[in-house]
Amino acid sequence: MPRFFIPNSAVGVRDDGTKTVMICGEDALHIVKSLRMKAGEKLDVCDMGRREYSCVITDVGETVFAEVTDERYSDTEPPYTAVLYQALVKGDKFDTVVQKAVECGVSKIIPVITDRCVVRLDKKGAAKKAERWQRIALEAAKQCGRSIIPEIGELMTFKEAVADASKADIPLFCYEAERGYTLSDALANTKAEPTVAIVIGSEGGFSVSEAKHAIEKGMKCVGLGKRILRTETASSFVLACLCYEFEL
Amino acid sequence: MPRFFIPNSAVGVRDDGTKTVMICGEDALHIVKSLRMKAGEKLDVCDMGRREYSCVITDVGETVFAEVTDERYSDTEPPYTAVLYQALVKGDKFDTVVQKAVECGVSKIIPVITDRCVVRLDKKGAAKKAERWQRIALEAAKQCGRSIIPEIGELMTFKEAVADASKADIPLFCYEAERGYTLSDALANTKAEPTVAIVIGSEGGFSVSEAKHAIEKGMKCVGLGKRILRTETASSFVLACLCYEFEL
Repeated sequence: MPRFFIPNSAVGVRDDGTKTVMICGEDALHIVKSLRMKAGEKLDVCDMGRREYSCVITDVGETVFAEVTDERYSDTEPPYTAVLYQALVKGDKFDTVVQKAVECGVSKIIPVITDRCVVRLDKKGAAKKAERWQRIALEAAKQCGRSIIPEIGELMTFKEAVADASKADIPLFCYEAERGYTLSDALANTKAEPTVAIVIGSEGGFSVSEAKHAIEKGMKCVGLGKRILRTETASSFVLACLCYEFEL
Repeated sequence: MPRFFIPNSAVGVRDDGTKTVMICGEDALHIVKSLRMKAGEKLDVCDMGRREYSCVITDVGETVFAEVTDERYSDTEPPYTAVLYQALVKGDKFDTVVQKAVECGVSKIIPVITDRCVVRLDKKGAAKKAERWQRIALEAAKQCGRSIIPEIGELMTFKEAVADASKADIPLFCYEAERGYTLSDALANTKAEPTVAIVIGSEGGFSVSEAKHAIEKGMKCVGLGKRILRTETASSFVLACLCYEFEL
């Protein structure tokens, strides 16, 4: 079933009490031109308040109107809030990270500059990239049935990222040199609906001084097992483990 | 540290008791031409019996000779044997599946034809593809520090795959329609060092008759949570969960 996100303001109630949603812009174009949907066909719509609507299209045009046939609280969000602080990585790997992380339940993704980043971006360049990543997050959210569109945050320096991440209930610093303290140690006996921060390095990992700084600031240094994961694999690996621990 | 796999037969002992390994073929070429390594430089070598050797290069040429300075049992393998039965998927997605699955600890990957596969391959075409996938598995195994090179099996029909998979201690059939019985139910209270089979569908999932057949044959139908994972995400998701349950 095609799925679209709309702002709360795009849900209206007619005189006779029936609810109607309006879908505009690119999504309307997509419905009409690509999916070639017609009046009478069904689609799902999700607002930003985690409400989901089953709808039947009534009008197709520059704006698509659809009547709500069923309405429910969306339950596809995980019982935790996971923010990924991902170091910039080469090529289109960050695209993949965003797509997979959204599927695996991330709430927000913040690009980070670390010592060993080969890719260099200033705030302006990052803002442009962020537009692209936000579009990928939106498409992934639609495809996998999320109830929110995970946000791409502003580029942070490593120290800014650690300062932010260390406030989380479970502040994870993924460090390949750490083999003693593991992810399951870090997730044991945590409070209900925790906030989780996941800090992941670039291809070259973190420098020793970065690891030292992170630990000083209260981050939990965790190993991810006996094999060395690629940076673009690590984020979805950790998110899968979170899902397994709290959702499955 | 560069890492190479050699057959057991390529480890020899000299008169004075020092062990020497020989690296030939493409790997030797890679050491000499790409890595431009010289006598005196260090590398790691792993034989197929899960023994690992720290070595110092003594001769570079068509064959590279290296002296063993340390030898140990390799401990990077997981305490379970996971076989992935992956339906054929479009484009180069199977390449990604192989790479990520090897990183996440898979032992063997078997390509499978299912009802909803768009890609069609006969056994001959599959054998050619399998060569490519085997090379990807080898590179991933080197990169992430595996002690074995996970094998790419021969193409199976869906029924062959289920017949084979259902013999595992934990025979997982990943089915998006299943929301009651989860992966953690399936992994609870299992024997030590289990064999695990993971059967994953193509982009369109499994047909209802396939799911029925799998259940009849004793497969455990498991859901992977509240979001719909792409087929190329599902395999590494399940493998991450296995790692979390048994290794971390």
